[in-house]
Amino acid sequence: MTTPFRLGIAGLGTVGIGTVKMVQTHADMLAAKAGRPVEITAVSARNRGIQRAADVSDYAWEDDAVALGARDDVDCVVEVIGGSDGPAKALVEKAIGHGKHVVTANKALIAHHGQALSEAAEAAGTVLRVEAGVAGGIPIVKALGEGLAGNRISRVFGVLNGTCNYILNEMETRAADYGPVLEDAQRLGYAEADPTFDVGGIDAAHKLAVLASIAFGTRIDFEGVVCEGIERVTLDDIRTARDMGFSIRLLGLAKLHAEGLEQRVRPCMVREDTVIGALPGVTNAVVVEGDFVGQVSLTGPGAGEGATASAIMGDVLDIVRGVRTPLFGRPASMLAEMSRLAHGDEHSPYYLRFTLADRPGAMAELASALGDAGISIHRMRQYGQGGDAVPVVIVTHDARRDGIDRALASIAQLDACKADPVAIRIEEV
Amino acid sequence: MTTPFRLGIAGLGTVGIGTVKMVQTHADMLAAKAGRPVEITAVSARNRGIQRAADVSDYAWEDDAVALGARDDVDCVVEVIGGSDGPAKALVEKAIGHGKHVVTANKALIAHHGQALSEAAEAAGTVLRVEAGVAGGIPIVKALGEGLAGNRISRVFGVLNGTCNYILNEMETRAADYGPVLEDAQRLGYAEADPTFDVGGIDAAHKLAVLASIAFGTRIDFEGVVCEGIERVTLDDIRTARDMGFSIRLLGLAKLHAEGLEQRVRPCMVREDTVIGALPGVTNAVVVEGDFVGQVSLTGPGAGEGATASAIMGDVLDIVRGVRTPLFGRPASMLAEMSRLAHGDEHSPYYLRFTLADRPGAMAELASALGDAGISIHRMRQYGQGGDAVPVVIVTHDARRDGIDRALASIAQLDACKADPVAIRIEEV
Repeated sequence: MTTPFRLGIAGLGTVGIGTVKMVQTHADMLAAKAGRPVEITAVSARNRGIQRAADVSDYAWEDDAVALGARDDVDCVVEVIGGSDGPAKALVEKAIGHGKHVVTANKALIAHHGQALSEAAEAAGTVLRVEAGVAGGIPIVKALGEGLAGNRISRVFGVLNGTCNYILNEMETRAADYGPVLEDAQRLGYAEADPTFDVGGIDAAHKLAVLASIAFGTRIDFEGVVCEGIERVTLDDIRTARDMGFSIRLLGLAKLHAEGLEQRVRPCMVREDTVIGALPGVTNAVVVEGDFVGQVSLTGPGAGEGATASAIMGDVLDIVRGVRTPLFGRPASMLAEMSRLAHGDEHSPYYLRFTLADRPGAMAELASALGDAGISIHRMRQYGQGGDAVPVVIVTHDARRDGIDRALASIAQLDACKADPVAIRIEEV
Repeated sequence: MTTPFRLGIAGLGTVGIGTVKMVQTHADMLAAKAGRPVEITAVSARNRGIQRAADVSDYAWEDDAVALGARDDVDCVVEVIGGSDGPAKALVEKAIGHGKHVVTANKALIAHHGQALSEAAEAAGTVLRVEAGVAGGIPIVKALGEGLAGNRISRVFGVLNGTCNYILNEMETRAADYGPVLEDAQRLGYAEADPTFDVGGIDAAHKLAVLASIAFGTRIDFEGVVCEGIERVTLDDIRTARDMGFSIRLLGLAKLHAEGLEQRVRPCMVREDTVIGALPGVTNAVVVEGDFVGQVSLTGPGAGEGATASAIMGDVLDIVRGVRTPLFGRPASMLAEMSRLAHGDEHSPYYLRFTLADRPGAMAELASALGDAGISIHRMRQYGQGGDAVPVVIVTHDARRDGIDRALASIAQLDACKADPVAIRIEEV
């Protein structure tokens, strides 16, 4: 076949331009791998006039991105506009309605509307793919949904947001607090002007919801992700964690329990000598645990022009090669509705930090409050320092979250307790 | 579609039985993912009578594995007999000839006959896959050939043999020499009774040849892999490496140069704080470098019943889902014949170890021999110890291999040189 496979690219920001560059520079190689030429026929962006890092003057221009979805000269829409609704959603719906394939980097769109969109795509006989939306250049959607598909997955987890990993690493390296490090990250372009989606864990939650659906064959449930960002992680906690052999990571984790599906994005402590614990800079990593394979880890760049273009082109090549595997690894109609694990039913070891009055009896009050809540102590350290309040750090044995919450609430009431207690989950990775 | 997809399994050793267990225990899940039931209809092994860890009495039995390739009730042959020729090859050829798909764990077969077999499969319109043969449970063939296919690959490398990684780690942990550690590894089942394929690097070379072909679109060239095993790695070298921040790994590496394709399996020094350098136990890891994506690393179990079954089933599910991507990522007829990089043209920094007479002038003779061969010194350490000969360790700047060979040959002739010099390549990973 020498009929070209024709792309319409919606969005000419970093990722869109990266994709244009890849198509332009690798035309021969892509044609060899795809079995036919891969071409761009039309593009769309908000502003036609600005200078771009690639020449798009040969392609038809649409002022309205949604119009790309109806063009006769487009076989596949590449949607890199972003946003869970608005033009991105309208375009994807229109493209599917016109029998076109869709490759998107838009995890927010899929996290919110993945069920409906994949049903629509399957009904229309088209393919919808989102590799580029999850962990950037790491081909984790493919690994989880195809390569490891023979396994019953017990757990999938990872560092899904490079900005947060960068900030946590920088806080430690520079011995700096969260605020100034975030400001520098913004200045350097590692964090957005409005960083909420990143540092609040929402971006990671979008990605986690996609992974959970593929891993467990469940309908995507973004609303079910328990989400906590890194805004309240302190340098003290990072240092104490290191002192005990842990790194603090914003960990996204999905696990299927008899009681329901657990999905959470939270600062966690993980052993420093693991792939996740040792992860540098803005790198992402995802670990999959399957009943036959054991643990497989994938590490790589989580964002950026080249990494995202790489993921987009992987999806495009699959489509050209005739791959029709559904978005979530099985037909959307077969995805199961799954109950959520109750917050209180979570259990793990915890790191607890208290600020205690430095006087006789204080420790006894703390210890009995923990005992009353059924919390068993594994390791404890009291750090001597000047002043009349001292930090006390406790690592618990496996504990239920509702027990931890109860203990912390009662300890916060004690006279001896001089600051809000801190609880960080310890994850065995 | 509810017509079952029917497997014939040739070989009921560890891997074959693992595959049987997976099909039996995950029938519902596999059917949901594949869109139709996946069943085993026939099996073959050398000995019918022995006790096995899974019940195969419901399946038709063939005493001659090759006969599976002609059975009407088999859609796909799973070949886990092993060996580059003999019944494995005869079976795969017969299966393809009868229009059947083939999933194999047999890297030796593909390393030697991959070109002819993939041409035959493509001519017959069937699929031939070998994910299970390369790095066990790690879906690296898929990642390289599909997920990262948009990239021009500059380098692919990794630890492709778990036995060697185990032995090197154990030598260091137990401060033991190669011989006794190998014997223990054999007793524990981590190494074969005849360990040549593993410790000699041949197993890794088979896998590397497959990866190189996919990465660079070249015809598979196993004979072109420069191969050196771990038999001559000493505890001294492991300790000196650690002292300088390196781990010694049996590294498989393929890289495309203007002068030709470099493929080698060799003990190398790599920075200890990298994924490869920190790799524990029998774990495998593969790193892919692409021009758009940068570096992506995959880590996981390189062998074993469950891991290999997982990889086999990933291939089977792809085939059931209709995936027809060719074995090497592009049609076999389009793979390029590639010249080999000459041994002497290799270049990198090197670790050199000499045993020098402890007398004035010895170091000067050594240094001028290096200088004469154009070798520039980056770091040098002389270890003081009793006796009249002392170890001298040198880390060079980037050096051509022919220069290193020339320098070592002339230094070996020196009176001051008291033992064969050692050269280990340092790899920037």
